[in-house]
Amino acid sequence: MVKKIILDCDPGHDDAVAILLAIGNPNIELLGVTTVGGNQSLEKVTYNARAVLEKAHAPNIPVHAGCARPIIRDPQVAATIHGETGLDGVELPEPTRPLDPGHAVNWIIDTIMSNEPGTITLVPTGPLTNIALAARLEPRIVERVKEVVLMGGGVHVGNWSAVAEFNIKVDPDAAHIVFNEKWPVTMIGLDLTHQALCKPEKQRMIEGIGTPLASFVSGLMDFFRKSYAENQDFVDPPVHDPCTVAYLIDPTVITTRRCPVDVELRGELTLGMTVADLRGPEPSAEECHTQVAMKLDFDKFWNLVTDAIRRIG
Amino acid sequence: MVKKIILDCDPGHDDAVAILLAIGNPNIELLGVTTVGGNQSLEKVTYNARAVLEKAHAPNIPVHAGCARPIIRDPQVAATIHGETGLDGVELPEPTRPLDPGHAVNWIIDTIMSNEPGTITLVPTGPLTNIALAARLEPRIVERVKEVVLMGGGVHVGNWSAVAEFNIKVDPDAAHIVFNEKWPVTMIGLDLTHQALCKPEKQRMIEGIGTPLASFVSGLMDFFRKSYAENQDFVDPPVHDPCTVAYLIDPTVITTRRCPVDVELRGELTLGMTVADLRGPEPSAEECHTQVAMKLDFDKFWNLVTDAIRRIG
Amino acid sequence: MVKKIILDCDPGHDDAVAILLAIGNPNIELLGVTTVGGNQSLEKVTYNARAVLEKAHAPNIPVHAGCARPIIRDPQVAATIHGETGLDGVELPEPTRPLDPGHAVNWIIDTIMSNEPGTITLVPTGPLTNIALAARLEPRIVERVKEVVLMGGGVHVGNWSAVAEFNIKVDPDAAHIVFNEKWPVTMIGLDLTHQALCKPEKQRMIEGIGTPLASFVSGLMDFFRKSYAENQDFVDPPVHDPCTVAYLIDPTVITTRRCPVDVELRGELTLGMTVADLRGPEPSAEECHTQVAMKLDFDKFWNLVTDAIRRIG
Amino acid sequence: MVKKIILDCDPGHDDAVAILLAIGNPNIELLGVTTVGGNQSLEKVTYNARAVLEKAHAPNIPVHAGCARPIIRDPQVAATIHGETGLDGVELPEPTRPLDPGHAVNWIIDTIMSNEPGTITLVPTGPLTNIALAARLEPRIVERVKEVVLMGGGVHVGNWSAVAEFNIKVDPDAAHIVFNEKWPVTMIGLDLTHQALCKPEKQRMIEGIGTPLASFVSGLMDFFRKSYAENQDFVDPPVHDPCTVAYLIDPTVITTRRCPVDVELRGELTLGMTVADLRGPEPSAEECHTQVAMKLDFDKFWNLVTDAIRRIG
Repeated sequence: MVKKIILDCDPGHDDAVAILLAIGNPNIELLGVTTVGGNQSLEKVTYNARAVLEKAHAPNIPVHAGCARPIIRDPQVAATIHGETGLDGVELPEPTRPLDPGHAVNWIIDTIMSNEPGTITLVPTGPLTNIALAARLEPRIVERVKEVVLMGGGVHVGNWSAVAEFNIKVDPDAAHIVFNEKWPVTMIGLDLTHQALCKPEKQRMIEGIGTPLASFVSGLMDFFRKSYAENQDFVDPPVHDPCTVAYLIDPTVITTRRCPVDVELRGELTLGMTVADLRGPEPSAEECHTQVAMKLDFDKFWNLVTDAIRRIG
Repeated sequence: MVKKIILDCDPGHDDAVAILLAIGNPNIELLGVTTVGGNQSLEKVTYNARAVLEKAHAPNIPVHAGCARPIIRDPQVAATIHGETGLDGVELPEPTRPLDPGHAVNWIIDTIMSNEPGTITLVPTGPLTNIALAARLEPRIVERVKEVVLMGGGVHVGNWSAVAEFNIKVDPDAAHIVFNEKWPVTMIGLDLTHQALCKPEKQRMIEGIGTPLASFVSGLMDFFRKSYAENQDFVDPPVHDPCTVAYLIDPTVITTRRCPVDVELRGELTLGMTVADLRGPEPSAEECHTQVAMKLDFDKFWNLVTDAIRRIG
Repeated sequence: MVKKIILDCDPGHDDAVAILLAIGNPNIELLGVTTVGGNQSLEKVTYNARAVLEKAHAPNIPVHAGCARPIIRDPQVAATIHGETGLDGVELPEPTRPLDPGHAVNWIIDTIMSNEPGTITLVPTGPLTNIALAARLEPRIVERVKEVVLMGGGVHVGNWSAVAEFNIKVDPDAAHIVFNEKWPVTMIGLDLTHQALCKPEKQRMIEGIGTPLASFVSGLMDFFRKSYAENQDFVDPPVHDPCTVAYLIDPTVITTRRCPVDVELRGELTLGMTVADLRGPEPSAEECHTQVAMKLDFDKFWNLVTDAIRRIG
Repeated sequence: MVKKIILDCDPGHDDAVAILLAIGNPNIELLGVTTVGGNQSLEKVTYNARAVLEKAHAPNIPVHAGCARPIIRDPQVAATIHGETGLDGVELPEPTRPLDPGHAVNWIIDTIMSNEPGTITLVPTGPLTNIALAARLEPRIVERVKEVVLMGGGVHVGNWSAVAEFNIKVDPDAAHIVFNEKWPVTMIGLDLTHQALCKPEKQRMIEGIGTPLASFVSGLMDFFRKSYAENQDFVDPPVHDPCTVAYLIDPTVITTRRCPVDVELRGELTLGMTVADLRGPEPSAEECHTQVAMKLDFDKFWNLVTDAIRRIG
């Protein structure tokens, strides 16, 4: 069955791959892309989202710009990872379609409220500002969405501090809202995405497609590899964001474990940590609305990504 | 010159008086009333706002419901002060006009953006949730409003804790946003409003008007007197919210002092305290965009209130 | 009746005056001086304490050095107020008696435990590190001391932040311990000590004594005046610490109000604030073990100080 | 080479085993036992320490009682794990030697300062209150002790909250002091000690010794097994505390990893978490004074424990 998703993102090299996977896979219907200040400024990531859609021959997918900054805390960007443009390392086409009017938060609310209940999945791969404010402005969306599958956080791994991940640490208050609302939440955190490494053989598999889009993705990966080597001591870069879409296409790509997750708002060393309680036996879905990703089927994942890029052409 | 205001409130006995002062005074143009969960639930205070407008023969002033709960923290209401309905102690007329569609936050944004810059004053007398979210959804409103004159906080006085006031403590995160945006903010806090006591002679002055509306206000004051006697050890009740409108009608009603004000978000004993820095010489308006109310002209204030109730008829 | 006190201090210009008042007044028996890192490093303030005793012809009063730093937080000193030596502006005599061996905390405990219960008053005029650790190492001292009369904190006034005072802010954790133990605590805070200004006529009254010690005190005041003018925008310097001793000599020098006081440990803007709850009627001594100083009898205070300096000779 | 240690503990079933391992192994010289309120009240754990020494035919090892409660936070005990006496499940002999006078903190300081520098190892297996206050009262001990090998905390595991361990959570402020002083610290946390399970075959190995002491230890394990089954969902109980002593006897029993560790003091969900930063390459001992235990040699550990019980006789 085709899944309808809203991709809320801040492209971002791995966000770009998430967009491509959503467009290229026949089991996903991408209703629209919404953007949020994160990896780079709202203006830049919104431009990037539109350019990636253009590059993917999908200029008619709507793009709505959302929040430029976190709810409470001062803004911060990940320029060390994604460069000054947010998509350094490749050339972007000029978007042909103008930016859609209307704020992302209102568009998210309207889309959810005008579709059948239980049909829309939210897929946030940036800070959770837009999703949190949508839930505050229109609380009824919480029981109306099908589920939230997000990239962010980690159980035992941090990158923006010893124990916190970038997307959550940038707007921990928004994350606190999203994790505490009673919709089903699947957290695809660093424990999982650090398994989604773009190893050279996988990058060569993509290059082998031979299209300009494949070269574009390979260029993104070249830059990403360099960033992660210099800043995070990685040999191959972890391609975080498309793991969310891959999980929606085929849940067997990712093993999950159900457990309570909450977001630390006050810690000095732990601000923005997604605190998962793994003590005791695993709770049921009735007892616990949150689950965390534990193990990736590496080959399946990269096959999905490669297949989507090939299909787009 | 007539001042255009948006009254963002949670009626609430003193909010009701603020509405009447805004309607009855010829120097104020009340563009609309927006509501926010605070003294009572959003549903109740929204009904109350509409009923008070009906009672004041002003049913065509638009009312938009806003946020039902604080941005981050758990909701709390002031039922000990305002009763179960939020306006206990009086009978309310049935509103004749249906509630306006559209969220208060969007209506506030649209109203500010469609009026001339520098013409709209925001007058919040409840938790600052709506105002904060409006500033986050549309950052351009910050330089477009004329000023923010709010009831909340205190320099040396608390009521919902030793050092925090109800409106701020209920949604300290929203207050933090409002005080830190660079619009001019006048804080009419408890230091001032605890001077705005409804002494018996002032209540009799209002009763002397002899209209059903005057009796209605006197009924509100009877209940408020009892609440404050039982819960806060007051002889006469402080009528907080109309001080904001009175200040806009005639700035000489209130003496202010310019000083930096910020909101404590982490304190255990001081959560939601409006921390005013009164050290050193008073800064200029260029140096400091916030000021706090210090001293009330008691007679002038009650004359304005009484006059407005009389004018409404 | 003569009161036995332990003066725990960090001289410091006003600490020096507190020492002199304790030595020169016949109603005070100064059992010993203990020192704590605060206005300057432990080494410097310990030297200063010994030198002031020498200057006051009281070299046989024991001095024990205590804690060099706060329990948890990083050390900070008040060099902007007291200069590099902690007693800038005067020449100090060489102490003739060697520093007493033994840690201040142990000496405080031993002294309290070896004297009759209810006979010893603790008079801390610096950070509360020593007093707090004494209470933790030997909890029985809490019910054995007569009372604690301390300089620190404030109800409505701060100096080391908008709402916190130096002694408390430097070691808020120690202050939290001292205010929460159930001994009687009188807080002589900034509300009071900012009334204890060394106005020129009072300084001239001291100079009029004509002794080297009087000149020494006047020299201290000259430097203190300059510091406070430059750093805190004061015309005359507030002589904080001797207010504690003056209150013990004659309680009518200071009007107090009983109220709960606690210390904020988590606030970002309010760290180290002494949060006094002044709402409602004043509690009894049975209900509340803490009281705060409100109003100083200015002339009585300076007469006590002048008299003590004269008596010392 | 024989290692001189001070065991600072709160027996506690696993503390008792740690004491026995220290007494029974010829490579450890147990200079003394100090006690701290933790698993149970100070009074109870001090009695237990003396009784265990009696049981182990070592009544002449000095025992000094230390702090009854944490530095700042309210006391809490682990009665659910260790029972009302702190050593439920066995009968204890009456201690023949009276409790040593003198506070544990002073005895620790005096012992360290009177031994050669670099010869004493501190082995805390309870809350770190005594050790922290010793470092504050006599800062010179920090460079004088050989190292600190403590049971507490965890890298990826919690037991007293989702991410905090009992000893650290009870007195996080003390732990913050101990981890931030620049002595070498080895943290034997839950990641390690949850490997030190008393599996039935190991308990039978101990029982096989056939002495009253072996039966005593087996009785402790029976109770411990039941507690951990009921409260923490364990099949076999983790015997935390002796892992510290085992590591000192033979470092190959435990694999460690060097990394920065700090203690969260402000978090709401993470209070008392030992935050280990495992990002990037492992630092050198010069760069980093803390290391954490990762992997236990299970058989070697239990052989050491069994051997010590056998030697004691």
